[in-house]
Amino acid sequence: MTPLITLTTDFGLRDEFAGVMKGVICSRCPAARMVDLTHNIAPHDVRHAAQVIAAAYGYFPGGTIHVVVVDPGVGSDRRIILLEIGDHLILAPDNGVTSLLLPRSTRAYEVNNSDLFLQPVSTTFHGRDIFAPVAAHLACGLPPAAVGHEIAPHSLVRLPFPAPRQDGDTLHGAVSDIDHFGNLITNIDRESAGRLCSGNFHNLRVVIGPLTIRGISPAYNAAGPGAPVALFNSRNLLEIGLCRGNAALELQLGLDCEVCLSI
Amino acid sequence: MTPLITLTTDFGLRDEFAGVMKGVICSRCPAARMVDLTHNIAPHDVRHAAQVIAAAYGYFPGGTIHVVVVDPGVGSDRRIILLEIGDHLILAPDNGVTSLLLPRSTRAYEVNNSDLFLQPVSTTFHGRDIFAPVAAHLACGLPPAAVGHEIAPHSLVRLPFPAPRQDGDTLHGAVSDIDHFGNLITNIDRESAGRLCSGNFHNLRVVIGPLTIRGISPAYNAAGPGAPVALFNSRNLLEIGLCRGNAALELQLGLDCEVCLSI
Amino acid sequence: MTPLITLTTDFGLRDEFAGVMKGVICSRCPAARMVDLTHNIAPHDVRHAAQVIAAAYGYFPGGTIHVVVVDPGVGSDRRIILLEIGDHLILAPDNGVTSLLLPRSTRAYEVNNSDLFLQPVSTTFHGRDIFAPVAAHLACGLPPAAVGHEIAPHSLVRLPFPAPRQDGDTLHGAVSDIDHFGNLITNIDRESAGRLCSGNFHNLRVVIGPLTIRGISPAYNAAGPGAPVALFNSRNLLEIGLCRGNAALELQLGLDCEVCLSI
Repeated sequence: MTPLITLTTDFGLRDEFAGVMKGVICSRCPAARMVDLTHNIAPHDVRHAAQVIAAAYGYFPGGTIHVVVVDPGVGSDRRIILLEIGDHLILAPDNGVTSLLLPRSTRAYEVNNSDLFLQPVSTTFHGRDIFAPVAAHLACGLPPAAVGHEIAPHSLVRLPFPAPRQDGDTLHGAVSDIDHFGNLITNIDRESAGRLCSGNFHNLRVVIGPLTIRGISPAYNAAGPGAPVALFNSRNLLEIGLCRGNAALELQLGLDCEVCLSI
Repeated sequence: MTPLITLTTDFGLRDEFAGVMKGVICSRCPAARMVDLTHNIAPHDVRHAAQVIAAAYGYFPGGTIHVVVVDPGVGSDRRIILLEIGDHLILAPDNGVTSLLLPRSTRAYEVNNSDLFLQPVSTTFHGRDIFAPVAAHLACGLPPAAVGHEIAPHSLVRLPFPAPRQDGDTLHGAVSDIDHFGNLITNIDRESAGRLCSGNFHNLRVVIGPLTIRGISPAYNAAGPGAPVALFNSRNLLEIGLCRGNAALELQLGLDCEVCLSI
Repeated sequence: MTPLITLTTDFGLRDEFAGVMKGVICSRCPAARMVDLTHNIAPHDVRHAAQVIAAAYGYFPGGTIHVVVVDPGVGSDRRIILLEIGDHLILAPDNGVTSLLLPRSTRAYEVNNSDLFLQPVSTTFHGRDIFAPVAAHLACGLPPAAVGHEIAPHSLVRLPFPAPRQDGDTLHGAVSDIDHFGNLITNIDRESAGRLCSGNFHNLRVVIGPLTIRGISPAYNAAGPGAPVALFNSRNLLEIGLCRGNAALELQLGLDCEVCLSI
């Protein structure tokens, strides 16, 4: 069975762009199996895409090829890269969208073997002309090293994803992502929080904007409708939500808003 | 060929949630074939989801496994259930989302065989940790009875979906759903209407909000652009629309709005 | 391997409509392979759909069956047609949505072999009752001529897609489509522009609304953030965008807005 190809783009779902990538993939590798991770990354939102792919790739079978095309620099001299992470492959522009994956990456290649590309290569749609055909060839068995020459991981573009800062009994973090439900996802992970409270999560206090939340909830509906909850989400990150509500909209809090966790 | 798995969620299409479910399914059952019914149920809108799955499941081949994750109670003690409906399987939270299917259900199980789950099971994303792996095992041939113990259908949560009320020559119904085009879908079915008018549908009169519509149209464009039409839709329910327009927006009518059908 | 089926509709992604079509296709042709081109054509926007399918179909493998259901006339006497274009098949309503494909079409059939349809055929959802089962039968090997009788291509409905008008050294065109990023796509193709400037694209001047843009950019980010760029897009059409911005929203320019290209 051919490996899976996942697709993550900011192409949206009203034009032909995502579908055309699939057409090219199927033309080059008829047995390809494709899964949309999302095509609704906000236009050019490399930061959100970086978190989405980092949270998702590990749930796919080994051998999966993950294609990420959030690529405002398309047509410029930014590189296209292929990362090996264990037995997963990540094909993406070198613009920081792989920042959270680099610590786990074992090898990196610059994708520049133009024999693999759809010709002529446009300057505006490398998803169609480069990413799709290269992914198809990889799915059909092309060895990663055939896409181009190996490059040093330290040469890759990294976006800042600051870790929370500990100051005595307090972790100072921030909102780093907002999900479809309006939940505010922070950069404070469960393990760091557990160290702070020696595993007594009910002792923790979360302060965000005007809110103080006491204790970590086990589930979104642990409080009454509309009440704020703090919990560790499916990415194992501290998250603030409103029970059956939209925290980002109703609290008017957003990205980079400070979050303090203390005992 | 492995059975189909359909997916119906309120996860939206901008985060990794739906894609991660597919990754887990493919990891457990590589030959799985998946169809998105929708991931755009409004957050927590169990009522809309109940109507969508009831309208759709029967058009899929026998053996299909339908996964519904509109689950505001995730992580609480709400049960997860597996229903047999003829040769279809429905995997869903026990929160009323299967209300319209229960009359057709022949057997029900509580899903509690944790050997099937992705471990550790989170309290926030059972779509990934329970629904996806259980669906994958079912697609790969696990017998339904292996998901947990059988439970009595009368113990399942039911949402109220009131039938229209007949009062002399008038059926009093209500808007129960609104589709993507803004059409107002009522709870009045074609059969009940046919009895009212002895099959002479052109004799019927529909009153909704400020509108009176005479006669049932055969098609959306039977009237001039912008004119209201009443017809029986693809679910065989009475529906009020505006020819080439959006009735819900333009008439400012919504869910639970009364609709009277008379001769 | 069965041929691909692509789906292009205005059904949106919150109701069961697109999923039900896939259920019907899989019921009739279990080995069918389906790719969503888009289900987010704006309701009844035949003009956008015509451009999407024309831009996309050629990137799919030969033998692909392209199903287009943007069909405000469903249930009226508008015809359903099957076009052969090389080794591609297009199944669509005869409402102009195939206008841009007709010059390349080699044969056309009216789809009226009701033995292929899902019975009873509704008047509101031919996507489910006609398009899906017919596509499934074609994917499973039904010859095109079996869908109905051949018809003369000149009898098919055509929407006006005017070509740009040359006046001396100036091409007068217009915005004919807007993409997800807000880029303004014109009806001026690269070849016509090349003739105007004898291949010296840097000599060209684009005037649209209050803007004058000198020279054609190679890529979206060739200017600074927020600056306007004119380039030839992945459809080989002149397009005006804002670097990392949304031209349609920020410039308040839209469909049919005049665009002048001169040297």
